[in-house]
Amino acid sequence: MLLPFLPAIQQGNIKALAGCITLIENQASGSLDLLKALPVSKTPVIGITGPPGVGKSSLVNALTGTFLKQQKKIAILCIDPSSPFHRGALLGDRIRINQWAQHPDVYIRSLASRGSLGGLHPRIFEITDLLKAAPFDYILVETVGIGQSELEIASLADLTLVVLMPGSGDEIQAMKAGMMEIADLFVVNKTDSPGSKQFIKDLQSALYFGTKKTDIIETVATEDKGIGLLTAAIETRLQSIAQKEPQNLTEKAYRLILAGKMKEIDKEDLFKKIHAQMPAGDFNIYRFVENYLSADH
Amino acid sequence: MLLPFLPAIQQGNIKALAGCITLIENQASGSLDLLKALPVSKTPVIGITGPPGVGKSSLVNALTGTFLKQQKKIAILCIDPSSPFHRGALLGDRIRINQWAQHPDVYIRSLASRGSLGGLHPRIFEITDLLKAAPFDYILVETVGIGQSELEIASLADLTLVVLMPGSGDEIQAMKAGMMEIADLFVVNKTDSPGSKQFIKDLQSALYFGTKKTDIIETVATEDKGIGLLTAAIETRLQSIAQKEPQNLTEKAYRLILAGKMKEIDKEDLFKKIHAQMPAGDFNIYRFVENYLSADH
Repeated sequence: MLLPFLPAIQQGNIKALAGCITLIENQASGSLDLLKALPVSKTPVIGITGPPGVGKSSLVNALTGTFLKQQKKIAILCIDPSSPFHRGALLGDRIRINQWAQHPDVYIRSLASRGSLGGLHPRIFEITDLLKAAPFDYILVETVGIGQSELEIASLADLTLVVLMPGSGDEIQAMKAGMMEIADLFVVNKTDSPGSKQFIKDLQSALYFGTKKTDIIETVATEDKGIGLLTAAIETRLQSIAQKEPQNLTEKAYRLILAGKMKEIDKEDLFKKIHAQMPAGDFNIYRFVENYLSADH
Repeated sequence: MLLPFLPAIQQGNIKALAGCITLIENQASGSLDLLKALPVSKTPVIGITGPPGVGKSSLVNALTGTFLKQQKKIAILCIDPSSPFHRGALLGDRIRINQWAQHPDVYIRSLASRGSLGGLHPRIFEITDLLKAAPFDYILVETVGIGQSELEIASLADLTLVVLMPGSGDEIQAMKAGMMEIADLFVVNKTDSPGSKQFIKDLQSALYFGTKKTDIIETVATEDKGIGLLTAAIETRLQSIAQKEPQNLTEKAYRLILAGKMKEIDKEDLFKKIHAQMPAGDFNIYRFVENYLSADH
């Protein structure tokens, strides 16, 4: 039973929080009961995403510093594109963030992204919801904006910052395109690098033809430049987007329901059936799936 | 009815093939009947994946040139990380490949990756299966290896080439980690760039600690260097991995069944239900999902 830990989490007990996150990660028995008992919370979740190398970690670092000066308590979730093969590849980034790891008003948790349906972490929604029950003022979720993770981050976060930097290859440009649609705020970081003025001009024209008005904030995160403006913009935007909630909840519910339905599909069983039918020599996967779906599953 | 087009496709009629691909893309009525009628085919599907900027398109270009010299017929599927916002962002890459676009023995099709469950294209499996019915010797599928797409490409392809290049940032290194596990062959491209020797050494050590033996082929695709070695390695590997089929089919079946099950989840309906229950003030999404799954869906 994890339920008895809820009051401690609500009072800011980090050990209780960290332990319960681990149990949720492992889908330990009782974790669903804990989640079902969570009260409604309005703690804003801020997603920070963008292509590799634009300085997302430095930005999270700088944002945290500014929030701490405002006496805020901060939780940071970092979604690492790691793998069993090469653990620790992102150590450099993590150490940069960990400047705040010992601060009493900061809680940092790193999650590996592997094995998820859509690119983030299979329990990211649940873990964020648990964090919302603890007395944090902001929850920052940092993720590399690649593949489907951009859509997940948009349904997870109340406010999504898309971080870009001047200049980058063709394919990274194209990845940005998907991020355009989910951005509530653009952060152009490293504006001290060459081509910065032209890049912002191009971004502005691209946005001009888009469907929604999105502000651009210019920063040099490693030097704390533009971070005050950014926190102000975040606070202003958070006040105006309370109505995003039902859409986000629909996305969340959809993903949770999907996860429930996926449990019913037994891959082992599929493999056995396919293996048994293949020797006939005319195996067709579309006929197989039609039969499977029409049978009692 | 698309079924009458099947004989034309099998005889190499490109217009019939292209038209049917479009209809499959749009899930036109009759496309499932066509898929259910497809005969068993052994045409090898070669996946080419890797981080942005490593030269995957140049490699596909060079491979195609070498296969054509061997009198082979080639189909190329390019999965573009494009978006409604910024169509055409990858034009540069496409033009490089399109050196072969007018060649009678090459068929090139570009698919946008948006909206897919896992990062590739929602109908990529079906389209590849249709291509396998046409008289091609090889089907090349090129995709940016990001997010979940690496897992999909592994279940789609009979042989997966992971393309890397010497030197790149921390995060790109980490993305590679996921690709390590799916590689049947590594291609280190741009070996004329600095740090090449050290990079290959590092990759070899990383592989040494891995679970499977994977060869490394060095290329400079833009100058056709190493491409002969690569095609030879591809042919050797293809002969030895015929037994991959049932695992791949299980993954395919899983995804097709999942897509069938996803149709049953009506987002509009979810949104209405959530919207109706929220004013009560104690909305909890885990209780909501539990109720939804236990109801008759």
